[in-house]
Amino acid sequence: MIDLRSDTVTKPTPDMLDAMYQAEVGDDLFGEDPTVIELENKLARLFGKEAAVFCPSGTMTNQIAVKIHTQPGDQMICDKTSHIYHYETGGAAFNSGVSCRMLDGNLGRFTAEQVLANINPDAVYLPKTAMISIENTSNKGGGSIWDLEEIKKIAKVAALNNLRMHLDGARIFNALVDSPHTPKDFSKYFHTISICLSKGLGAPVGSVLIGSKDSIKQARRVRKMLGGAMRQAGYLAAAGIYALDHHMDRLKEDHIRAAAIAEIFKEKPYVTDVIHAGTNIVLITLSEDKDVNQTLADWKEKGLLAVPFGGQQIRFVTHMEFGDDQLEQLKELA
Amino acid sequence: MIDLRSDTVTKPTPDMLDAMYQAEVGDDLFGEDPTVIELENKLARLFGKEAAVFCPSGTMTNQIAVKIHTQPGDQMICDKTSHIYHYETGGAAFNSGVSCRMLDGNLGRFTAEQVLANINPDAVYLPKTAMISIENTSNKGGGSIWDLEEIKKIAKVAALNNLRMHLDGARIFNALVDSPHTPKDFSKYFHTISICLSKGLGAPVGSVLIGSKDSIKQARRVRKMLGGAMRQAGYLAAAGIYALDHHMDRLKEDHIRAAAIAEIFKEKPYVTDVIHAGTNIVLITLSEDKDVNQTLADWKEKGLLAVPFGGQQIRFVTHMEFGDDQLEQLKELA
Amino acid sequence: MIDLRSDTVTKPTPDMLDAMYQAEVGDDLFGEDPTVIELENKLARLFGKEAAVFCPSGTMTNQIAVKIHTQPGDQMICDKTSHIYHYETGGAAFNSGVSCRMLDGNLGRFTAEQVLANINPDAVYLPKTAMISIENTSNKGGGSIWDLEEIKKIAKVAALNNLRMHLDGARIFNALVDSPHTPKDFSKYFHTISICLSKGLGAPVGSVLIGSKDSIKQARRVRKMLGGAMRQAGYLAAAGIYALDHHMDRLKEDHIRAAAIAEIFKEKPYVTDVIHAGTNIVLITLSEDKDVNQTLADWKEKGLLAVPFGGQQIRFVTHMEFGDDQLEQLKELA
Amino acid sequence: MIDLRSDTVTKPTPDMLDAMYQAEVGDDLFGEDPTVIELENKLARLFGKEAAVFCPSGTMTNQIAVKIHTQPGDQMICDKTSHIYHYETGGAAFNSGVSCRMLDGNLGRFTAEQVLANINPDAVYLPKTAMISIENTSNKGGGSIWDLEEIKKIAKVAALNNLRMHLDGARIFNALVDSPHTPKDFSKYFHTISICLSKGLGAPVGSVLIGSKDSIKQARRVRKMLGGAMRQAGYLAAAGIYALDHHMDRLKEDHIRAAAIAEIFKEKPYVTDVIHAGTNIVLITLSEDKDVNQTLADWKEKGLLAVPFGGQQIRFVTHMEFGDDQLEQLKELA
Repeated sequence: MIDLRSDTVTKPTPDMLDAMYQAEVGDDLFGEDPTVIELENKLARLFGKEAAVFCPSGTMTNQIAVKIHTQPGDQMICDKTSHIYHYETGGAAFNSGVSCRMLDGNLGRFTAEQVLANINPDAVYLPKTAMISIENTSNKGGGSIWDLEEIKKIAKVAALNNLRMHLDGARIFNALVDSPHTPKDFSKYFHTISICLSKGLGAPVGSVLIGSKDSIKQARRVRKMLGGAMRQAGYLAAAGIYALDHHMDRLKEDHIRAAAIAEIFKEKPYVTDVIHAGTNIVLITLSEDKDVNQTLADWKEKGLLAVPFGGQQIRFVTHMEFGDDQLEQLKELA
Repeated sequence: MIDLRSDTVTKPTPDMLDAMYQAEVGDDLFGEDPTVIELENKLARLFGKEAAVFCPSGTMTNQIAVKIHTQPGDQMICDKTSHIYHYETGGAAFNSGVSCRMLDGNLGRFTAEQVLANINPDAVYLPKTAMISIENTSNKGGGSIWDLEEIKKIAKVAALNNLRMHLDGARIFNALVDSPHTPKDFSKYFHTISICLSKGLGAPVGSVLIGSKDSIKQARRVRKMLGGAMRQAGYLAAAGIYALDHHMDRLKEDHIRAAAIAEIFKEKPYVTDVIHAGTNIVLITLSEDKDVNQTLADWKEKGLLAVPFGGQQIRFVTHMEFGDDQLEQLKELA
Repeated sequence: MIDLRSDTVTKPTPDMLDAMYQAEVGDDLFGEDPTVIELENKLARLFGKEAAVFCPSGTMTNQIAVKIHTQPGDQMICDKTSHIYHYETGGAAFNSGVSCRMLDGNLGRFTAEQVLANINPDAVYLPKTAMISIENTSNKGGGSIWDLEEIKKIAKVAALNNLRMHLDGARIFNALVDSPHTPKDFSKYFHTISICLSKGLGAPVGSVLIGSKDSIKQARRVRKMLGGAMRQAGYLAAAGIYALDHHMDRLKEDHIRAAAIAEIFKEKPYVTDVIHAGTNIVLITLSEDKDVNQTLADWKEKGLLAVPFGGQQIRFVTHMEFGDDQLEQLKELA
Repeated sequence: MIDLRSDTVTKPTPDMLDAMYQAEVGDDLFGEDPTVIELENKLARLFGKEAAVFCPSGTMTNQIAVKIHTQPGDQMICDKTSHIYHYETGGAAFNSGVSCRMLDGNLGRFTAEQVLANINPDAVYLPKTAMISIENTSNKGGGSIWDLEEIKKIAKVAALNNLRMHLDGARIFNALVDSPHTPKDFSKYFHTISICLSKGLGAPVGSVLIGSKDSIKQARRVRKMLGGAMRQAGYLAAAGIYALDHHMDRLKEDHIRAAAIAEIFKEKPYVTDVIHAGTNIVLITLSEDKDVNQTLADWKEKGLLAVPFGGQQIRFVTHMEFGDDQLEQLKELA
């Protein structure tokens, strides 16, 4: 079975599993899990921030960021396609009482000008605009990469208007691996950064929120309130450390194979549009006469899995377990 | 001073004030204010519902409706211009933990087809679509009136998908006064209806939420939690009763004068667009070279008040205190 | 009918009603109701604070105070009998996500020592202690008056521990009228003060929250979110101004009559305990063989109303409409 | 170092670690982790319920239970010492808008009569009593075990008053291991049960919420909103399965050693009270002249860890890593 539903479906490699097996652990609620601490420090350093906190999911790291950057009733600016609005079960409103002002970006990427036009004036009847969330790469934008220059401009608007900047970096390494920029080049424009270890990096569980000492202190409190504080979490953290050390560079392969998938579908008469923005996601649009669910069911029978992505769109995500052999097979199947 | 900032600026007429003065009152928290009860019953009957509850504002009646129709984390479908999203200080998220799915309607009016396309499937990561809010007339839509046939279709989609229907009827009487339809023709498609007494009707304070006995029982509990339960509120209710009895028909005059205002501005070279959708609101768009705030300041000096409405737009609302004399003056000023 | 269920049941006197009738009003959402502004300024001055905001109820002023002094998840210290915990429909949790640490006070009054022992240390699993609420007079404490010296000590503990102080002064004038202390003597120990105009003062509707300019700016935003912002609220405010000018001193009469009621019940064989703490509330405890609801029903038939107050307790509250004649009648009835 | 701070500090045994290493995993958000499913089914069966859901912590399982059993503004009845009120960072208010009515139980155990006396009547100003939470064993009650007969009576009161019953069973197996009762004997009186795998059972991470199919479906949605849904969580679940299979019976040893610790401290002149309620917790109270923090610091230096537990109290918890050798050492140290 070729499973391209998500890069979250991968299982640890034997070496990663060994790293987990050998992890030194402790009770993280007492701050005594050395492997968790090592992972947190490693990522904080990598992104040039003071601190980090390990969480069970990227939804939790995003939700905690919203909570610590806002007051109930505030508004967050994000793209109309953003994960934080669409795919987190309404968490911004549930956990933080925050509404979203959705911008009409280009494949998930908006501009500083759009931000400026959508900051509410200070009036008692308008929600206070409090933060901006940027998703890089953008999931619904087909894995699109943000331009560092635009982020810089947005950060300037944010600073002038007293808005906090959050980076939903669930797939930030996909944005970075082919880029001339370092993690720090990006991170300096953000107050907090959420990183997923269980996507392209291939760890089984976990995300990390990175920020200032003060932000992360608050984040630990929110994590506890949400029930996300774990005991001997070092087994999971060990997989994350291994992934950061060994699976970063190979993301490039995922991008090359995604490009190949895009080429395959561009040829298909039943596909009206193909989006591949350079990373590990491919979005195709089926022609109107083609039923999405039927197509997915037919593929499943043949051994290919993908997910419906709204309307006539289908999403494929390449990952560690999708190699050249699988690519060849996919050519046959599609 | 000609004040067209809102139809909320009117003060009671001497007769309305007399009605207030003579009101019989009691402690409404003990359910003993006869005038409040009379107003609630009067509106429940008018809209063919079982019960109603008097509140200090239309924001509160809307917010209570969202609360009783949803669970925290749920999603509400509304137009992208809707008051309930824009002008209630983020209340849906604050009070109810509810996010908005904004539809791209025509002057604030969306279609059943758009609703259907925006109901989330049942998946653990998607907010549950729980309710639809329709604003009639639509404030940011320039006082536009909804088509009863479309409401009927939307209500059908709602019923099939187990969604609750709320009518933000802050200006419902402006929609009804020139219409062949009765209040009941509209109300039967909604679980709750919010009515404002302090807009075109000219009462000083108050809104009423109308619905089933059960809904209004819940609403009274939410009103108390929000701090909206008042003691001898009959003085305010008396003005509402008077307004319903005496100020309904004259809304037509407001519409005629709004039409006249629209005509005036259509002639102006500095105006690029005029929207008058038949009721008491006029929206004009200034040409790009014209500064909105400066224009409003100049008018204020000359004796004319209006409000900025986003971008180059300015809103005028006609009301009881804007008569033909004021219309003549406005012709001179604009 | 002698109605001693609450001091909220009173209706305006003819003179108060005249003051309402003659009030100059405007749209308070535009900040243009002169009578509302006058009332707010009058109370701010009286209590030596910068600003004030008029609200539909004391529940709302209390709830707004909790909101502006806390973050969701925080804890408020209050007496185990406090109105803010018991009688506001769970509002602290609903509106602010705040839990209560209830102290075991003496007739609703706790000590600085008790406060100190109940401030949570800074640990991720403990709610952050953020504020203290003091109710003066205490309703369930039988109208008991707080000692200024103890408040001073509590305020010191609060300052050292970075806690905000709120005074639920629903009946603060009952505490002040017989006291050597001025409103300012009390108010300087509090960040916010909630005052009810519709209790002993006899206005029909309304409460005022008093505090710093900054606090009240935030409060106006919360008031709008909750739906508590009203349009021409000056009619209600006029009654409040009248009450402050004319009904303050006569609260003493209510206290004297309450003392007389207490004496009456001390004689009764079916009463095992009588609490009269010097103001306008009397709490009696019926002997175990006496059914509370039956007793209240019997009295109602004879023309006397009171409320059940938990267990075998019944509450009487004296007010403007309870004069010496009524007191004589009560002697016959009880 | 003898670490008796909590039974959460234990690390997996080599055999448990092997079970983790060999676990078959999948993406649990797609419902495809066989080991997670096995654990959930195993516990659902054991407690005679339809379904279960694996979560990162017992705080999350408790918090989800509160959420699915209540509406915002509702009230939960629990003991004044309960974990769900004290040690979950104010989560009931934060996540669910729920307040606590705290009962004055005996070592954490209250009676049906107390419950009945604390259910609020149906009034608009009173929070609606919606659920009861029972903690068995009770942590702050010194590991006390609830009497099944009292639970039966409470469940009857709950049923008559339409209240939901939740069992905080963080240490339920400590209550069951020496008892004639089966898990099902207890579970039938509860709508939901929270089980911790990382306490006495010795798994590194994880708790499970058990209930009806419908409750657990809702719980999965809330878990996602809170950010508690994990990907390949089977590694953690495998440890849980191993613990249920191999570490249950040995809890008795912890109880015996706790009894021995209690005996040791009963002899100490600096200890004024010792509570050992039969399970793995011992609470001692130091005499007033003894400083708690200093005592803990002194012990730490000598190689003994425990936690301060409020006032003069100190808590010890026995667990898998505390054997007879450590017990001998402790005798020397204390």
